Amino acid sequence: MKNKILNFNVSTVNNEFYIRKESVKQPIYFRTQQLSNKVKECEQLILNFYNCSDGRVIFLCGTGTLGMESLIDNLISSNKNVIVINGGTFGKRWVDLCKTHKIDVYNYKSGFGKNIDLKKLEKILSTLKPEFLLMQHVETSSGQLYDVESVGKLCKKYKTKIILDSMTGFLIHETLMDKWNIYASVTSSHKGLCLYPGISIVVLSKNALKKSYNSKSMYNNFTYYLNSYDAMYFPFTTNLVVINQMYLKLKYLNKIGINKHMEKIKKLAEYFRYNIKSLPLKLAAETPSVCCSVLYTEKTDIMSFFDKMCEKNIYFTPTGGKNGKIFSVGHLGNLKCKDYNIFINEIKKWVKS
Amino acid sequence: MKNKILNFNVSTVNNEFYIRKESVKQPIYFRTQQLSNKVKECEQLILNFYNCSDGRVIFLCGTGTLGMESLIDNLISSNKNVIVINGGTFGKRWVDLCKTHKIDVYNYKSGFGKNIDLKKLEKILSTLKPEFLLMQHVETSSGQLYDVESVGKLCKKYKTKIILDSMTGFLIHETLMDKWNIYASVTSSHKGLCLYPGISIVVLSKNALKKSYNSKSMYNNFTYYLNSYDAMYFPFTTNLVVINQMYLKLKYLNKIGINKHMEKIKKLAEYFRYNIKSLPLKLAAETPSVCCSVLYTEKTDIMSFFDKMCEKNIYFTPTGGKNGKIFSVGHLGNLKCKDYNIFINEIKKWVKS
Repeated sequence: MKNKILNFNVSTVNNEFYIRKESVKQPIYFRTQQLSNKVKECEQLILNFYNCSDGRVIFLCGTGTLGMESLIDNLISSNKNVIVINGGTFGKRWVDLCKTHKIDVYNYKSGFGKNIDLKKLEKILSTLKPEFLLMQHVETSSGQLYDVESVGKLCKKYKTKIILDSMTGFLIHETLMDKWNIYASVTSSHKGLCLYPGISIVVLSKNALKKSYNSKSMYNNFTYYLNSYDAMYFPFTTNLVVINQMYLKLKYLNKIGINKHMEKIKKLAEYFRYNIKSLPLKLAAETPSVCCSVLYTEKTDIMSFFDKMCEKNIYFTPTGGKNGKIFSVGHLGNLKCKDYNIFINEIKKWVKS
Repeated sequence: MKNKILNFNVSTVNNEFYIRKESVKQPIYFRTQQLSNKVKECEQLILNFYNCSDGRVIFLCGTGTLGMESLIDNLISSNKNVIVINGGTFGKRWVDLCKTHKIDVYNYKSGFGKNIDLKKLEKILSTLKPEFLLMQHVETSSGQLYDVESVGKLCKKYKTKIILDSMTGFLIHETLMDKWNIYASVTSSHKGLCLYPGISIVVLSKNALKKSYNSKSMYNNFTYYLNSYDAMYFPFTTNLVVINQMYLKLKYLNKIGINKHMEKIKKLAEYFRYNIKSLPLKLAAETPSVCCSVLYTEKTDIMSFFDKMCEKNIYFTPTGGKNGKIFSVGHLGNLKCKDYNIFINEIKKWVKS
């Protein structure tokens, strides 16, 4: 018999049983007042948790990159002055998305796993005076947590609008859109919310709310999603299972408080890091997020270790690809210390082999 | 206590219990050989069922409109000569999508619920010589089933490439891409396949396979999805639950044969239509598909009937909107004659009230 499935990833996480169980229920027709009422409650709770008053939320049926792309497609026209803080795979994704949408960007390579040099950034901002700054809350590829609050202060000074990828930030670290001067943000159903993949959650501050958007697509066009609330809330069929899961999860988080939820993630990250301290592994990030531990190793056989673990139903992310010397161990989802013990033992055997 | 949920829709259908139950299982990390192997099998079965040899399938995480849009975005550049057969809401969606993508189209309004006038169409084709023809297999808003085979013959003569929306055609009516000269097609997980919404299935004939596509987006760009088969098959996180459901369903369909599956749908449509024969309701389509019965009524209170049915957990689609005199009753999914009896009784009470 195979072991219990253990997802130490941030792309697919272990879901609580009550969340998985919700998905077995027969979904109903989506253009109903029942669904619309649920979605309204979800929106309000997300805005509260994001510290985003008078904003709006758009639930796109798709995954993270769709949400990131929709922000560029709707909010930034090609003649705009844009800077990207690029510290890894997802910073590069902002750059590539802008390129795809024919937007020239100032590609500020902030260094893999490095804090942002705020003095250097201010110099660029004061010269460039960009209208938009794109960044990650957490660069998932390195696990680096950025000081968004300080970047927010700088951007306020230079009247730059921040578009924040908070995929692995929201409900993992405090995310304060109003306080930090965030124009718009995006997360996914399968990160801090710990649901199934399938819904990308776009959060627009009150400043980002317009009557029309310059989207070049139909499926992503915010205008269609921001009509007045009624039973027609969704312009297109959506992922009903994830919406139903989200409703349950948000109500639960509201009851226990999001701090308790975030503390649990932090504790798992600390437990894991403490217990691998003696191993020849090194965290890639200067300021590591608690969402995952991205680790350097001297081992060159990550992929065969990965395959071996898959056979045991243990999943982690070889972030460096086939010949990389870097891998990621996630701390999201329904995991316990004893689950980490199993994986830590395997890691120990591997690094010592 | 509420009744059992009965979805007489084609946007959300009643799912078999074994399909719903599959969704409760903990999904695993998506970049694994396990998932990749499943996806390969799914692709091959879909190509077989579509009669599309040497083609490829792209599984986009999203719903129908995303799939339709991706076909335009990738396959048609703005200087192309395009005709749309527009017989209702989804024909109009092709037109609107082309407009969004700055493609001029010849909007051939074929009439709501009407067969295509093939002589008239040939005249247009011979004059216009379009490179692409966009159409539906079934125009879901009227329930009209189109004679795609005959359109295919005409298009072959004039070297026009057909892009077919087979949302409510695939696995409901015979769909023969090779035989009918179809260039590319699209369906969704929650129609004939009867799974949860969340995956849009794009089918490319061997003629539509290229090394690069002219997509203006990243999430939709076919190039990223058509890399060689390996554990990295999905460029972005996808809807794992629907992929797992799809695998089960396709294997089952392959075992019983898709004809048996289609016969069941046909029988339900016939049963429903026979039993409402005496009522003052009229099918909107000249050649009605078996996917749904779209009905005209003289009643003006469809929306209050709809609300009343929602309270009883019975869902149908008021296709004409708030003041319409038209509604749709679906025949897809896990429904039985006795389920129709319940709804037919309600319809009888309503039309006689």
